[in-house]
Parts: sequence; C-alpha cells; structure tokens
Amino acid sequence: MTTLAWPEVPGQKCQARSARRELEDSLKVLITGGTGFLGLMLARRLLLRGELTGRSGKPEPVDSLVLFDAVVPPRRPDGLDSRAEILSGDISDAGLVASLVDRPDISVFHLASMVSYGSELDFDGAMRVNLDGGRRVLEACRHRAEGCRLVFTSSIAAFGGDAMPEVVTDNTKLTPETTYGTTKAICELLVNDYARKGFVDGRTARLPTVVIRPGRPNAAASSWVSGIFREPLNGEECVVPVELTTRVPLAGYRTIIENLVRLHELDGEGLGNDRALNLPGLDVTGQEMIAGLRNAADRGLGPIKVRPDPAITQIYKSWATRSSSERALAMGLARDDNVESIVRAYIEDFLDGPVATE
Amino acid sequence: MTTLAWPEVPGQKCQARSARRELEDSLKVLITGGTGFLGLMLARRLLLRGELTGRSGKPEPVDSLVLFDAVVPPRRPDGLDSRAEILSGDISDAGLVASLVDRPDISVFHLASMVSYGSELDFDGAMRVNLDGGRRVLEACRHRAEGCRLVFTSSIAAFGGDAMPEVVTDNTKLTPETTYGTTKAICELLVNDYARKGFVDGRTARLPTVVIRPGRPNAAASSWVSGIFREPLNGEECVVPVELTTRVPLAGYRTIIENLVRLHELDGEGLGNDRALNLPGLDVTGQEMIAGLRNAADRGLGPIKVRPDPAITQIYKSWATRSSSERALAMGLARDDNVESIVRAYIEDFLDGPVATE
Repeated sequence: MTTLAWPEVPGQKCQARSARRELEDSLKVLITGGTGFLGLMLARRLLLRGELTGRSGKPEPVDSLVLFDAVVPPRRPDGLDSRAEILSGDISDAGLVASLVDRPDISVFHLASMVSYGSELDFDGAMRVNLDGGRRVLEACRHRAEGCRLVFTSSIAAFGGDAMPEVVTDNTKLTPETTYGTTKAICELLVNDYARKGFVDGRTARLPTVVIRPGRPNAAASSWVSGIFREPLNGEECVVPVELTTRVPLAGYRTIIENLVRLHELDGEGLGNDRALNLPGLDVTGQEMIAGLRNAADRGLGPIKVRPDPAITQIYKSWATRSSSERALAMGLARDDNVESIVRAYIEDFLDGPVATE
Repeated sequence: MTTLAWPEVPGQKCQARSARRELEDSLKVLITGGTGFLGLMLARRLLLRGELTGRSGKPEPVDSLVLFDAVVPPRRPDGLDSRAEILSGDISDAGLVASLVDRPDISVFHLASMVSYGSELDFDGAMRVNLDGGRRVLEACRHRAEGCRLVFTSSIAAFGGDAMPEVVTDNTKLTPETTYGTTKAICELLVNDYARKGFVDGRTARLPTVVIRPGRPNAAASSWVSGIFREPLNGEECVVPVELTTRVPLAGYRTIIENLVRLHELDGEGLGNDRALNLPGLDVTGQEMIAGLRNAADRGLGPIKVRPDPAITQIYKSWATRSSSERALAMGLARDDNVESIVRAYIEDFLDGPVATE
C-alpha cells in the first residue's frame, strides 16, 4: 500500500486533530418547524445557553443549529448568530430530511406540524406533514445518527372522545377526535417504538395550549387562547369563538421552552418504554384568563367579545379540559405559577422588551 | 347534441337493466390476508352464508369474493367456489390495492399483517406491510368506495407496558412494547379517524390469541398457544417456550370468525368514535389449556415439554394476561364456553371432519 505524499505545513496536523476533538465534543441541533414561534424561541434559548446535554450525557457546546421549516421567512429573524442556519423544504421528502441529519452528534427537536384546525381542513396534508414527516425524521435519525436524542412535540389535543375522563393523565387512552390529534398520537407510538428498539432516544412532550403567541391569529383551533390576551393588550378587540366557560389547559411559552430543554437533557432510561408525558399546565376557563389578564395588565385593554363558532366549539367539546402531569413534575419539569405571570412575561418579552414582535 | 345510434337487440336493454339492479343489490367482499388461516375460514363462512349486511344495512348476496394475499397458495384451497378469486401482490403497492376496490358496493375485511415475532425481527417489513398496507387499504376504500364497511383485525398485543392494568379493557391506553402492537395501535387510530371523517365505515376487532391453528408453527410469538393443543392431538411432542403459569386471553377460531361477521354487520354508529373493541376471550394459563385438552381429547396425546425461550418470554411479559370485552358483549358478540369446546371444534373440523388440514 502506497501513501500519498502531501506537503506538510507546520502545525497543520495538530490543528486538524484539535478541530476533530472539538467536533467530537460538540453538538449540532436540528429544530424542525424551526422558524415557527416555538422553534425560534427554542433556537434563541439554545444559542444564549450555548450548550446542551445530548447523547453523551454531559453538556456540550452547540456548534451548529439548523432551523428547518416549510418556508424561509422573508428576513432573517432576530436573535440568531452565525451558528444558526435556516433551511426550507418538504418534511415528507425522505432524502432532504436525511440530509439534515449529517452527523452522529446531533440532537433533534421535532416541532414541525400542521396545526389543529388546518389539519381538520386538509386531511391529506396532515397525513403528509405530520405522519409521513414524523416518520422521515425518525428514519433519518435511525440511519444517520442512531441513538441520538429527539424531542417530539405532541399535544393534549391527542386526547378526546366520549370515554375521556375529567382529568387526562399520562395513562389516559389517546382517542383523538381530530386528524391533528390522530397524527400526534401515531407519532407518539412511533417515537416509543423507535426508542424501544434503540434507533432513537426519543421523548414526547404532550403540550398544553401555548400562550401568549405574538403576531396574528393562525389556523389552530386554539388560536383564540393567545388572542384573548394579545389583542386586548394591543388595545384591539378580541372575538372569542367559544363560550367563556370553556376550560383549557395552557402554559406560557417560557415554561414550554424550558421544559423542552429539560426533557431533552434528562436520562431517557428514566422515562421507561412510554416516552410520552403531559407537560404541566394551568387548567383555566376563558373567564379566568380574562381575570388574570386584568390583574397583570399595566395598560388599557381592548374589548373582548364572545361569538361562538360552531366548528371551533365542536373541536373544543372533544378536547381535554383538565390535565395532570405526574411524570413530568416527578422528573423536575416546570409549571407556570399563574395566568398573571404568563401575561407579565409576554409584556416583558414582546411589548416592553428587546425581542421584536413578529 | 347528437346521439350515437346503436343497433337494438330485442331484450338486451331489459337484460342490462336487470343485471344492473342485481349488481346494486349485491356485494363484493375483499379479504386481505385472504389465504391465511382466518382469511380462508372467513371466506368459506361467507360463501356458505351466501349473504352479508354491508353499507345498505340489509343482507345482500355476495357475488364476488376476492382473497388478496402476499403469495398465492400452490393449490386452490378447498371450500371456495366460482365466486372466489385469489389475487396476490404487495399490500403496500397503492395502485394495486386501489385496483382491488373496483366498485362502491364492497365490504372489506383487512386481515393482512406480518405477525408478532416476525415484526420484531423485521421492523421495516412490519412498517411496510402493517402500517403502509393499512393506509393503502383505507385510502383505496376512501377514494373508490367512500363509506364502505371495513373490519380491521387489531390484537390485544397492542396493549403492553409497565402501566398496563391487570385486566385490559376497551379503555386501556395502548402502549405496545412490540413493533407488531405498535403498527396495530396506529392502524386503530387511522380507522377511527377515517370513520370519523366518513371516509370508511371502519370497525376494529382487537383479537385475543386465536386457537387452534392447524398446520405448522409460525413466526407469531403466540404460535405455541395453538401448538400446545395441536401437537399432542397429533400424537406429537410440543415444546412450550414460556412457563405454564403464563396466562393468555384466547378464543376459538369459530368464535372469531362469527364475531368478525357480526362486527361487520352491526350499525357502525353504535360504536361511537372509538371504533375498536376487545373481542371476547377466555383468560387461561398454559396449565388450564392442558387440563382442557385432556378433558376434551378423545385420543392419546403426545407429550408437552416446557423449555422457556428468553425472547418469547420477554414478549409475553409485556403482553396482557386478562382482557375484558364489555363493549363487544353489549353489542351481541360471542364468547367461547370453555377450552374444551374449542378443542372439540378443532377435532371436528380438522381431525375428524371434512375440512382438510393445511
């Protein structure tokens, strides 16, 4: 066997070796749905934090952060530095998704999803994005970064049905009555089996409704739960599409982001074979949301009107109104103090603070 | 607008009309996994019966019966007449599966599946056959026979996990610990959502272990539950791969076939949005199986030996040992009397009777 002779540059070999060691001791993070509200929040948090505990079980610097989403935003969002790269494409494209998982030392947050009401209107789209997309991400991890950590965001909208108990627990059967919930429940099952087989060290966070999302309403049936705070704080009118007696488990985005990171960092073995858990939430009615808003608001508020929408009301009838989170709390995940603290955080972050509204 | 002039043959128009009416008042039945044990049993039962209540809500003659399977058996099985056609192919081939659903007046029994232990050895095969195959069948029905009745055979192997209660009920959460169970649980969710959307009038039967299968052992982890009866009745030795204290919910094939037909014929609305139910079974230990065999056997029995296999034992540790079937019993589905009646039926059908062993 012959060896090719390369001109040796003093110090180069040493530099290469040191670069390799640095790589081995650092992490790439892939966030699908990365330019959505939660994806960007999570990205900023990870960049600020600088490190994450992944498969090695110890904190490692994040040297690369890929935000993958269906579309690239028109301008680069604030709060991202040179470590962050935004890539766009179809999450049901197996080759493309595989190309995102290009090294074994990767950690994945799989947030990409069509939302609830949108899925109800576009069954095939929901199957393609939520179900096929989920499978593509799991397969890419399995084949290109076997055993890597992955956090999947499911939803308490995966609960539903006539037999649903008053309080949904970690052990409540998932009998969703939306296509959105169905695809989430299916991906939970897949994450469990991929974890059991050792393909991916997956964990599923079943999210309550996340508030307060800045910007405009979206196609989620739960969009109003942000609007009921956001529009009045902006001095605008809010129209609520369900009765104010409707009770909703919700959580502030700061707590959600914190819990996604904590769930990623804990030892997966401790989760057992059911890798899914309800994230802690507050179970509050529309009336209680308004009361909390009034207590916490430091400004005049726009009016709140109730105009029930039959389709949204129907979806809410099938959804859980109270959730418990024994497993998450036992594993040290966080819970919001109250509605007021959620409102104050939003005012700080989006109305008074340095982060631009979207 | 001009009308093409066709030579009129006396009586032809009338004949065509009558043929059309006959077609409208009759059913095609598609059985996937049709040349497997249950598929063939079901086919013979439907041919003998001659009619089935499908989407019209009243009994209609079965004019065509397609048994679709991965391979065509080397010789045409007994008990099939000219109404029955055997077709083979890959159930994950969307075009092929669509071609099987070639008329709206169709009823489907979707039994095709890789078995439990086989799925554990071949993850990708299980995903392709059980998950993709299930989706192909549902899509074919949705687009070519929207709202047709479909019975899907799930399994109590879809239950599992540390949090599983002593008795699994219709409302127990599905946390399978096998890939087989995972694919079954996923297809249950899909059947529910296709039914909710009105795409397919689906129903899911969660089968206990079906006994006594004739022939040779197969790659199901539950294969021994037939072998413990079959081999001794044939004067052969049976090696049981789990301890005899292992308790298994089981049902005789006659009862299973009867229940699949009843489940198909009942009004789907009565099932509500969760279209899946546990089929009734008997929860018996290996020891109780042997006692029942001895009580019912009319001949000398081969020896039964116990030689625990770690892989099979592991799978059984994750499976349900007792199941309840409130919904099925309330809807008029049948339950076996006891182990003895199952053994006697097998002797009648396969050892003394006119049906050839396979």
